[in-house]
Amino acid sequence: MIYLDNAATTPMLNEVLDEMLPYMKEYYGNPSSIHRLGRQASNALQLARERISRLINAKGEIVFTSGATEANNLALKGFASAMKNNGNHIITSSIEHEAILEPCKELKRSGFDVTYVPVDKYGMIDIDALESEINEKTILISVMFANNEVGTIQPVKEIAEIAHKHNIVFHTDAVQAVGKIPVDVQLGIDMITLSAHKMYGPKGVGALCINNDLNIEPVLHGGGQENQIRSGTQNVAGIVGMGKAAELAMNHMDKYANHVQKLRSNLIDSILNKIKYSKLNGHPTKRLPNNAHFTFFGVNGEDLIIKLDESGIEASTGSACSVQKQKASHVLQAMGFNHEEITGSLRLTLGIQNTSDEMEKTVDVLVEIVRELRKVSPYGLKYAV
Amino acid sequence: MIYLDNAATTPMLNEVLDEMLPYMKEYYGNPSSIHRLGRQASNALQLARERISRLINAKGEIVFTSGATEANNLALKGFASAMKNNGNHIITSSIEHEAILEPCKELKRSGFDVTYVPVDKYGMIDIDALESEINEKTILISVMFANNEVGTIQPVKEIAEIAHKHNIVFHTDAVQAVGKIPVDVQLGIDMITLSAHKMYGPKGVGALCINNDLNIEPVLHGGGQENQIRSGTQNVAGIVGMGKAAELAMNHMDKYANHVQKLRSNLIDSILNKIKYSKLNGHPTKRLPNNAHFTFFGVNGEDLIIKLDESGIEASTGSACSVQKQKASHVLQAMGFNHEEITGSLRLTLGIQNTSDEMEKTVDVLVEIVRELRKVSPYGLKYAV
Repeated sequence: MIYLDNAATTPMLNEVLDEMLPYMKEYYGNPSSIHRLGRQASNALQLARERISRLINAKGEIVFTSGATEANNLALKGFASAMKNNGNHIITSSIEHEAILEPCKELKRSGFDVTYVPVDKYGMIDIDALESEINEKTILISVMFANNEVGTIQPVKEIAEIAHKHNIVFHTDAVQAVGKIPVDVQLGIDMITLSAHKMYGPKGVGALCINNDLNIEPVLHGGGQENQIRSGTQNVAGIVGMGKAAELAMNHMDKYANHVQKLRSNLIDSILNKIKYSKLNGHPTKRLPNNAHFTFFGVNGEDLIIKLDESGIEASTGSACSVQKQKASHVLQAMGFNHEEITGSLRLTLGIQNTSDEMEKTVDVLVEIVRELRKVSPYGLKYAV
Repeated sequence: MIYLDNAATTPMLNEVLDEMLPYMKEYYGNPSSIHRLGRQASNALQLARERISRLINAKGEIVFTSGATEANNLALKGFASAMKNNGNHIITSSIEHEAILEPCKELKRSGFDVTYVPVDKYGMIDIDALESEINEKTILISVMFANNEVGTIQPVKEIAEIAHKHNIVFHTDAVQAVGKIPVDVQLGIDMITLSAHKMYGPKGVGALCINNDLNIEPVLHGGGQENQIRSGTQNVAGIVGMGKAAELAMNHMDKYANHVQKLRSNLIDSILNKIKYSKLNGHPTKRLPNNAHFTFFGVNGEDLIIKLDESGIEASTGSACSVQKQKASHVLQAMGFNHEEITGSLRLTLGIQNTSDEMEKTVDVLVEIVRELRKVSPYGLKYAV
């Protein structure tokens, strides 16, 4: 099997699992317990916080959550709830993940105004448009660090500067970026969302790192864990795994990125070279090192991934979270793509486990499948070669 | 080490870990992905749902969450939010876990009325008082299946009957009961909260089982996983572990309960016999098979657990979640305990791994520690023997 869906989830590294195992065996204490077993668990959480803080150069609080969705809900709803007397306007982008867009819809139902800033054809946010949307009621700007579908890296530093110029808090959902490219909270990020399973850690764990000056109301109420911000017994083993994944990402960032970027760039060149009527989507240079996103004209992306799957290649048309809803990608729509461009889209996202042999095989298989699919589809015939 | 804090968290069974491991190694797909690896993960979730449903005889939907706290938040806030036009009154008990009490406080802030029904000296809810508090605005009754501190098992069937007589939905937080005593959703439970790490499964996973007729609004918004009720990539390995733990609990319920109950009853008899000025708290017969809760007059429970810890015995004064806040137990207060009774309290909660040798050792150590502590404390002197 050739796994090219690392934006949906990554395999866990052996070192991560090795570090988790003792916390699934002998160190099983509840971190809120005051006895030895509890303190061991609590110390393990502390080490994970430190490792994650180092990876993103964070000075603020690390609040562990069940994943990025919960962290995004906490950042948006928790902050908006705490700040509702200061203003009711939020600015985000039109290409965010559902874990941002859906909390925004929910905030709208409870009286907030939400502005969705457009992007250009590369999926790059229009920062002039963003600044022009700011008004005296704007309390929060939330823009993703890098897009999960097309991989475009946003001008986070510039957005943070604009936010702070207007005394507005800046949040970024950085799940696709952290561990793959350098992410420095000191760029001016007030809240940042992380996901363990996007960086070779376990599923079911994420974090929100919060600048210490901010007020956040809890989304989950209960025993008051995570400094009263997020209740619920912590997923100790998962958090330990996330901490280890962060440490590995920090120590091997250059090696990982270089390996993946080289494979990815060769893959893009080969595919564009060997498959006519194909194009690369997303920004040509400001993109994640592991992302390749294409349109193959005259092909249905869903058919493509089913055929690839049959050949042992795991890929995606876009976000795993929305793929089962069979909706057209809102990201590609926001980039101004027409129906045909959206329909023929394929996302290949690489990981550190991929090899150049796998890339060659992928290209060969893809060439064949695209040719076949174009032949049998009425709207593909004009591209059949 | 002798671990007697199984109400705080349980060690994971080897069979549970064995079943989880493949999902932390080769079967790492995102269950929302439509390729083979995604479908494998999705099928694993389905099997876990079936195993959990069998354990509690549930016909409704199993919604996986990050734990019982999230499940309780979903049951209370999610249901209240969906039903707010039908009524704004909720009835619960005065001895619930913080994961119920705190969401209730939050609902109160947003305009709901919450009534806390009292309990008797055994921690048993007053069902006449409960029924008398029902009014035309009551939409939900939430009463725990068994108490986490003193182990008292509530008259859930009777409460469900009262609720349904008045067309009110009944929720129960059953984390301390499920896997330890038979829990049958068909008693009339409309929503039930479960936690994996309280039944020899992993931390970071829980579930809310919901009668199919109910409307619940999400607490976490995003990609629409878990049938649009709970967004976020599922913790596949954790859920697999929870499913296995449910299967084991179902297959071995009698064996587990008999083993633990016998040890526990001998432990209670020995302690009450050997330590003067001690008493058992909670109901004498309607209590969880693994719970023993005492007051040792003239002793500070915190000192007791520190001394026990030094002797390698892990115990607790009460809920792990509130122990770090150094608050007097609201459960014991609701049971009418005075300051001295609360101060001298100790909770010993057994698990299937405990042995009779461990119980003997525990009694010996406890006898010695209580004697010592009474000697050195000014308020203990009168009990020193």
